[in-house]
Amino acid sequence: MVGSVVLSMAPDENFLIEGSNATGINGTGALIDTESRDAERVLIASTLTFLVGILQVIFGVLQIGFIVRYLADPLVGGFTTAAAFQVLVSQLKIVLNVSTKNYNGVLSIIYTLVETFEKIGTTNIADLIAGLLTIFVCMVVKEINDRFKHKIPIPIPIEVIVTIVATGISYAADLEKKYNAGIVKSIPRGFLPPAPPNVSLFSQMIAASFSIAIVAYAIAVSVGKVYATKYDYAIDGNQEFIAFGLSNIFSGAFSCFVATTALSRTAVQESTGGKTQVAGIISAGIVLISIVALGKLLEPLQKSVLAAVVIANLKGMFMQVFDVPRLWRQNKVDAMIWVFTCIASIILGLDLGLLAGLLFGLLTVVLRVQFPSWGGFGNIPGTDIYKKVKDYKNVIEPEGVKILKFSSPIFYANIDGLKSSLKSTVGFDAVKVYNKRLKALRKIQKLIKKGKLKATKNGIISEPGINNEAFETDEEPEDNQDLQVPTKEVEIQVDWNSELPVKVNIPKVPIHSLILDFGAVTFLDIVAVRSIKTIIKEFERIDVRVYFASYQDNLISQLERGAFFDDTVRKDIFFLTVHDAVLYIRNQMTYSDNQDPIFEKISLMQESKEPIEFTEASQPDDELDVQEEAMRRLAS
Amino acid sequence: MVGSVVLSMAPDENFLIEGSNATGINGTGALIDTESRDAERVLIASTLTFLVGILQVIFGVLQIGFIVRYLADPLVGGFTTAAAFQVLVSQLKIVLNVSTKNYNGVLSIIYTLVETFEKIGTTNIADLIAGLLTIFVCMVVKEINDRFKHKIPIPIPIEVIVTIVATGISYAADLEKKYNAGIVKSIPRGFLPPAPPNVSLFSQMIAASFSIAIVAYAIAVSVGKVYATKYDYAIDGNQEFIAFGLSNIFSGAFSCFVATTALSRTAVQESTGGKTQVAGIISAGIVLISIVALGKLLEPLQKSVLAAVVIANLKGMFMQVFDVPRLWRQNKVDAMIWVFTCIASIILGLDLGLLAGLLFGLLTVVLRVQFPSWGGFGNIPGTDIYKKVKDYKNVIEPEGVKILKFSSPIFYANIDGLKSSLKSTVGFDAVKVYNKRLKALRKIQKLIKKGKLKATKNGIISEPGINNEAFETDEEPEDNQDLQVPTKEVEIQVDWNSELPVKVNIPKVPIHSLILDFGAVTFLDIVAVRSIKTIIKEFERIDVRVYFASYQDNLISQLERGAFFDDTVRKDIFFLTVHDAVLYIRNQMTYSDNQDPIFEKISLMQESKEPIEFTEASQPDDELDVQEEAMRRLAS
Repeated sequence: MVGSVVLSMAPDENFLIEGSNATGINGTGALIDTESRDAERVLIASTLTFLVGILQVIFGVLQIGFIVRYLADPLVGGFTTAAAFQVLVSQLKIVLNVSTKNYNGVLSIIYTLVETFEKIGTTNIADLIAGLLTIFVCMVVKEINDRFKHKIPIPIPIEVIVTIVATGISYAADLEKKYNAGIVKSIPRGFLPPAPPNVSLFSQMIAASFSIAIVAYAIAVSVGKVYATKYDYAIDGNQEFIAFGLSNIFSGAFSCFVATTALSRTAVQESTGGKTQVAGIISAGIVLISIVALGKLLEPLQKSVLAAVVIANLKGMFMQVFDVPRLWRQNKVDAMIWVFTCIASIILGLDLGLLAGLLFGLLTVVLRVQFPSWGGFGNIPGTDIYKKVKDYKNVIEPEGVKILKFSSPIFYANIDGLKSSLKSTVGFDAVKVYNKRLKALRKIQKLIKKGKLKATKNGIISEPGINNEAFETDEEPEDNQDLQVPTKEVEIQVDWNSELPVKVNIPKVPIHSLILDFGAVTFLDIVAVRSIKTIIKEFERIDVRVYFASYQDNLISQLERGAFFDDTVRKDIFFLTVHDAVLYIRNQMTYSDNQDPIFEKISLMQESKEPIEFTEASQPDDELDVQEEAMRRLAS
Repeated sequence: MVGSVVLSMAPDENFLIEGSNATGINGTGALIDTESRDAERVLIASTLTFLVGILQVIFGVLQIGFIVRYLADPLVGGFTTAAAFQVLVSQLKIVLNVSTKNYNGVLSIIYTLVETFEKIGTTNIADLIAGLLTIFVCMVVKEINDRFKHKIPIPIPIEVIVTIVATGISYAADLEKKYNAGIVKSIPRGFLPPAPPNVSLFSQMIAASFSIAIVAYAIAVSVGKVYATKYDYAIDGNQEFIAFGLSNIFSGAFSCFVATTALSRTAVQESTGGKTQVAGIISAGIVLISIVALGKLLEPLQKSVLAAVVIANLKGMFMQVFDVPRLWRQNKVDAMIWVFTCIASIILGLDLGLLAGLLFGLLTVVLRVQFPSWGGFGNIPGTDIYKKVKDYKNVIEPEGVKILKFSSPIFYANIDGLKSSLKSTVGFDAVKVYNKRLKALRKIQKLIKKGKLKATKNGIISEPGINNEAFETDEEPEDNQDLQVPTKEVEIQVDWNSELPVKVNIPKVPIHSLILDFGAVTFLDIVAVRSIKTIIKEFERIDVRVYFASYQDNLISQLERGAFFDDTVRKDIFFLTVHDAVLYIRNQMTYSDNQDPIFEKISLMQESKEPIEFTEASQPDDELDVQEEAMRRLAS
């Protein structure tokens, strides 16, 4: 990523040497002033590093480190395995000593791998043998270290031994000249003097440094998390941000590169037993010595040996693949996050792959919230416990009552799911039923106008006098006084569950009450509030009352703010538990059943305009109902 | 988007006319074979359209239309307002007759707006006056239409009248020549013959057509949703996909362009009263007539008049801005989605803005799930109801029991939240307590070794014989037989809540049981399952039993698959309700309190190796407990 910024800000064309516009031998043309070009590029890279450092410190101070939380274990597993694969591919070509192009961006690993195999004929046998030997020796010794770790005082530092021996052999046998082996060759010595970053470049590279700051951090932390899980400690995301930021600011002033975690070196250090910061100091010290003095000595070392050491240490990372089947058994979604992140990181490259994995992880959360379990609930006889009708044998649904539990927050993405689960629980579509009823009513009104039907106080009587009893209504004839004047509105009282004298196929509505168990509804968005209100009204139109039970405490205030309550939708439809709601409904039903005949007669005699007032006044508040319940239990 | 594909696949350089390599007058150099270039470009555009159509049909068949669900109302509101703003800016420069560059991509509206105002000096006064007049007349007549809609049989088609009148004026006054007004001028007539798409181009444009297929669809559907809300109907996402796909495949064969919804034309049609497909047929018919015949007649019409008609019809879209304060009152998160999508769509352009809004919307869902409400719960005396201690006055926490309700699914992003809410509910950190106890124990063991303390069957007695009673233990001395042989393990029975003879500051643990109310935990991921298991073990180490209550039915199977249960974590810690758990705990406590002295003596006399077996056998299963509860209630 740094390379692409550097290339775009200081391309070769900027450093053409005057008068060299002739076509060169290698076909790329023009001589390039490499010295000034490289100086410029180093300046750009170190300025970028400085800016990345500043951004990281800002992120740390702003507590952006919380994003560590989104790096779920399966995501980290998949990502680091992909990173290990990437390292393997890049080391493979070194072991084979095959030169490939430098691919960048999407699919670059695959291209590199393909090209490596295409050129496998050019493999340097000396390098390959040295590499394979190194891998073999390292793995065997590591296995021994691991198996006898209680008997050996310190693990055998096989990497160091191999490196020294290989250097010796290479020097003695002069592998470079005899077998054309790829050796380390020149290690630049000494340091560049500190240089201030070029602040004027900041504005050009702000976008790039933003993403580099995040990606460098995320890679480091996700690798860190693997070891945090292994050694059971926690990572403080903000602390990491600030640490990386400060080190980048510092190193930016010394012509250094953006720091992140090198998976290969981390794996080498961890598996050779480096566990504390002391290991870091020692390795930094050795690098320092190498740079200023030892470098010369390591020059004959074959690159393939170094690459082989790295490969041998990737074993642990690759072993993570075996987590996947277990993960799949335990939790399919988590296994999918693992696989998706791994494949995305291999195909898209580590930076985009990490982002894709992160988004995929968040998407799975949304999907899991969006498609909750739901079902019709019923009572376990003799208890106040309600369980899913499908899952339990002896569960009984109260007569005329359907109970739906929808186990997730309700928001824009699952409001359709709520509606369809509602339809399938109650067994009909409230809107369709209403429209069909309206249609039937219009037909009845036409028949009444034509004189073929008669509307009486007890319902509608078809003129010929047959089927009379079928149209007797169980419900209160609230609007009897309007029956003689049929208008467009639904004002005739019809028993919709009986046979009708008109041929409209109206779905039966076998329920009078619907209880929505909101025990797992932790929040509602504005779309949900509006839709639920619509649902209540749709059901009310077909004489089904909707109640809500076992709601969360904060739900009422959310509904209040969402302008949910009005004259028709009041708080008395909320109950603390499903059982409270069922008891209330049962109470209401018994009450109206008992009182009905007398009440009806009175209202018929008086022809009162507001015959329902009495019923309304008798509706106990849900608070009251709870206390009643409590009293009942206390008394028992 | 189509333009950028066309430009990248058929750039001007491909059509340079041979030998024209001289620098041209306008500085852009070289003559271009515009004819063959345009033919090539039309072919590319229509091929692209064909491919987009195929993709859209595939999406429709694959039921990808579910993405409509993610277009929440606030998102659609913000997006369409931004789109209206974009249309306004593009029409504004036509009304002013100011020419600007064609900007593309991020911030393009802003650049266009800035350039328009920079060049405002070049405004054509004739066009401006015509435009303003049109806007004024249209708005006034529309207001009249709206206010007297019950008195006027059909709304006045002011747009048509204005267009005809303006064309007449422009022609009569010869505005173009006299005032240099911008007129429609040439309308190309006739049709291109149908041409097959160039299939060989498919592979080059697949990525671009993928995003075009989605964006074109999303724009159309989100505009559609505005009217769906207004007129209360539902949009079938898959049907839309297939419809767009088929029309694109068809039109791709006739040298047409990718179809989506033109916000301005939709707004014009809707507000002039076009509500059914008939309006579409009529307008298509008029366009057809215009193309083949009428075009000529409209040529003198000022462009600014047309632009003004569009602007006058955007009023409804802009009025959506006034939803925001109401939305903010009702639901802050939804208001944020609106504002974010609107700003993102203006700044990033409509395509990226829509994507950003979509992701932002999903992120809010994750955040709302991630930061749930939680709190310590207590009992409402005399009931089996448990409510939040903070919110209710007369709620009492059972002695020695803490009840935590965590109201959301538990997954990788909020597992830390669960841990910290647990800490703040119980008032201590289980791990810290354990470590401190371990430290204290080591000190006590040292003291015992030195002979300063004596471990007796009743606990630890400091040698001087003072403070003796303070160290009597209330708990069962389970491991008494080990007391004489202190090892590294925690084997001495110490009453941790009394004063200790060593100076280690151990936080008090005032509870013996912790109940987690999982009523709103609808799913757990693998990270959560592992962490919860760790939490149980951490609390068990400091003698606090963890119970789970009112879990969802599918939770147990999720836990089972996640390898949650083993010898120490068994299913008997799960209870149907919080009250069941509390009753069980109370039962256990009373039982052990009553039995303790005798039991202790017996165990001391017998020096039994397994003194706890008896207690274990008396643990009723949770099923049993429920039945017991049920029986109790039935009996009452």
